[in-house]
Amino acid sequence: MPQPAPTLLYAQSGGVTAVINATASAVISEARARKVRALAARNGILGALREELVDTSKESAAAIRALAHTPGGAFGSCRVKLKSLEADRARYERLLEVFQAHNIRWFLYNGGNDSADTALKVSKLATEYGVPLTCIGVPKTVDNDLAVTDCCPGFGSAAKYTAVSVHECALDVAAMAETSTKVFVYEAMGRHAGWLAAAGGLAGNGPDEAPHLILFPERPYDEADFLANVRRVVERVGYCVVVASEGIHGADGKFVADMGTVDSFGHTQLGGVSSFLAGRVKAELGYKVHWTLPDYLQRSARHLASKTDLDQAMAVGKAAVQYALKGMNATMPVIKRTSDSPYRWKIEAAKLDKVANHEKKMPAGFIRKDGYGITAAARKYLEPLIRGEAPPPYGRNGIPNYVELQNKLVRKKLPAFEA
Amino acid sequence: MPQPAPTLLYAQSGGVTAVINATASAVISEARARKVRALAARNGILGALREELVDTSKESAAAIRALAHTPGGAFGSCRVKLKSLEADRARYERLLEVFQAHNIRWFLYNGGNDSADTALKVSKLATEYGVPLTCIGVPKTVDNDLAVTDCCPGFGSAAKYTAVSVHECALDVAAMAETSTKVFVYEAMGRHAGWLAAAGGLAGNGPDEAPHLILFPERPYDEADFLANVRRVVERVGYCVVVASEGIHGADGKFVADMGTVDSFGHTQLGGVSSFLAGRVKAELGYKVHWTLPDYLQRSARHLASKTDLDQAMAVGKAAVQYALKGMNATMPVIKRTSDSPYRWKIEAAKLDKVANHEKKMPAGFIRKDGYGITAAARKYLEPLIRGEAPPPYGRNGIPNYVELQNKLVRKKLPAFEA
Repeated sequence: MPQPAPTLLYAQSGGVTAVINATASAVISEARARKVRALAARNGILGALREELVDTSKESAAAIRALAHTPGGAFGSCRVKLKSLEADRARYERLLEVFQAHNIRWFLYNGGNDSADTALKVSKLATEYGVPLTCIGVPKTVDNDLAVTDCCPGFGSAAKYTAVSVHECALDVAAMAETSTKVFVYEAMGRHAGWLAAAGGLAGNGPDEAPHLILFPERPYDEADFLANVRRVVERVGYCVVVASEGIHGADGKFVADMGTVDSFGHTQLGGVSSFLAGRVKAELGYKVHWTLPDYLQRSARHLASKTDLDQAMAVGKAAVQYALKGMNATMPVIKRTSDSPYRWKIEAAKLDKVANHEKKMPAGFIRKDGYGITAAARKYLEPLIRGEAPPPYGRNGIPNYVELQNKLVRKKLPAFEA
Repeated sequence: MPQPAPTLLYAQSGGVTAVINATASAVISEARARKVRALAARNGILGALREELVDTSKESAAAIRALAHTPGGAFGSCRVKLKSLEADRARYERLLEVFQAHNIRWFLYNGGNDSADTALKVSKLATEYGVPLTCIGVPKTVDNDLAVTDCCPGFGSAAKYTAVSVHECALDVAAMAETSTKVFVYEAMGRHAGWLAAAGGLAGNGPDEAPHLILFPERPYDEADFLANVRRVVERVGYCVVVASEGIHGADGKFVADMGTVDSFGHTQLGGVSSFLAGRVKAELGYKVHWTLPDYLQRSARHLASKTDLDQAMAVGKAAVQYALKGMNATMPVIKRTSDSPYRWKIEAAKLDKVANHEKKMPAGFIRKDGYGITAAARKYLEPLIRGEAPPPYGRNGIPNYVELQNKLVRKKLPAFEA
């Protein structure tokens, strides 16, 4: 059997976003433009281990274009973290085996901290074994917690969803407050950093505009103080809209709503902060309360994507292919902000070891002194990221025309492997 | 003091929707076109009782136009139900007193069943007292449970939000299912009728497309059967998306997630069905589960309004003014469907006593035989209602440009009244 042409492998990792497929679309389009064969791993690194490789050449140009307006992860993603090279040697070696069998010369791994770490380790092992391979990390996460890059593709759209949804709910509560709901709690994603909760702050400005209180994981949750503030806001404004990060915890470090389960990355699974807070407000203050837990809605709402975010998601995809073909091993295309006003940005290369396993915290100067709101500095940073609209085309049925790929796998060449 | 010109009073009642302000916009525009003075009650019937009447002539034409793309209730709504004419005589008489003091000849009450009932009672009392007053009910409710009308303004947009959100979440879960979330539960509003849960069914078609299971309040919740179905879907498709109505209950009639509180209309306050179901799936089947409770998001998401719904919301507003000026007392403009394909509708007048306190159930033929999905008849009815997009204009800040009215009150002429 003839050796296939030098091949690029793209894989998606971790929680998906409204625009990770836009990155995929840009990767495949750029590879096509450069006449490079592109495969995509089914379900992230798992597909690479199992030799389940999607032949993207079977997809039409229209389908690849439509990927850019389709949320979710078109090739499947996964929550699997490879351990150290020593502890997980068999799996790393299997990856190199699969890559060699399919002449994969460029590996693009689209994910967060953990994925950058995996890409880095694969690259080290390839060097050690003398396998010609260029590994590129491609940034993605709604949590905005990647180091080096000014922001992460996926965050801007989730942030826009959050700001718009908080604003819309607030108008609802304002209309009902006289005789009904007086307190509304919106729960935002963010395990350790309050980036999405902070984005909720863009819904309004000034002390009387919603959200009136934001609870950040960066500040310990002080129930008595929180409840006193809710009461003060209701007495002054007539109602109170609260945005709470899923990751808030008490002074003892215990998550306010710990569901007690752990995912395969070792992250505690959270959820239920909003119902907990609503219960406390109702019990202690007696106000009628409503709450929302948008959960996956906030990271899959492609219908409300930020144009800035979409542009950046596509730019990192395109740059990733360019870096790969230039042999810029163990790098990641990141977003560098060159101006706040007007907002300007460009893509540049960062070394993967500066990104892997670091976590970008929200600057202390982004949280208001009283701990319940965002500062002007936060607004200056956040606002450009939610700017611009990029709605998908809708069908006659009133639903966006999201594409489903064929995802035809190339023929396996190796024995099966228990991934 | 000279008597004011004959005046129209508009009031909003009950839970607000993405398009109730579009109805308000149409009412005020039509009144202006016909040179009729229009006031709006602050916080619904409460404002009428308290003589808190907004002078809509103080609002610019641009503000009234912008109302049509602004969610919430611009004048404030309320959850206050007047009792019978006998039991609540003092309040009904106060209404007539306020109406006479401000020369209110036309009263437009924009709400659901309860509001139609109030408008009808006010109209009866006015007749009894010989007060010249024309009372018009204007339909509004995301629950779609008003009798006579083919559908209710507000429902189509909430239905579109539901269908699009379920579809987007499903793409997320499909991408994650191999190693992470296998079951997702979406909770839809609807106390007694599964209209919004049914709308979730528009997200897909065929047994393998999400949502795979819909739980309707019209069918008793059978836990063993539900869990067996979840397992079958996961084994066949790889994941399972469930849409559950907040109002589902067991064979004994007990709500699955009864929060135990009651609003001023006497309706039980619900919420938490999705977390309950998620907990059962996790405990009994061991699958990783996520869930969402969109709550007010589904009825305030003007950014995702249905164009059909918006057009109907404005049409009933315009017709309400026309009916009022023609003296068509105790009527409601309703939507009559004249054709399914192509979808055509028109506005016609219904007698308020045919609407008041009736509740439109979902036809039995809309629920699939196995109880977990919608039929072709349901699709034929629902699909036109979510058709078309009508996005609001967005600002440079990435948020829709929703308008806030000045809501200047006219001077009171009567002694205060404890409403």
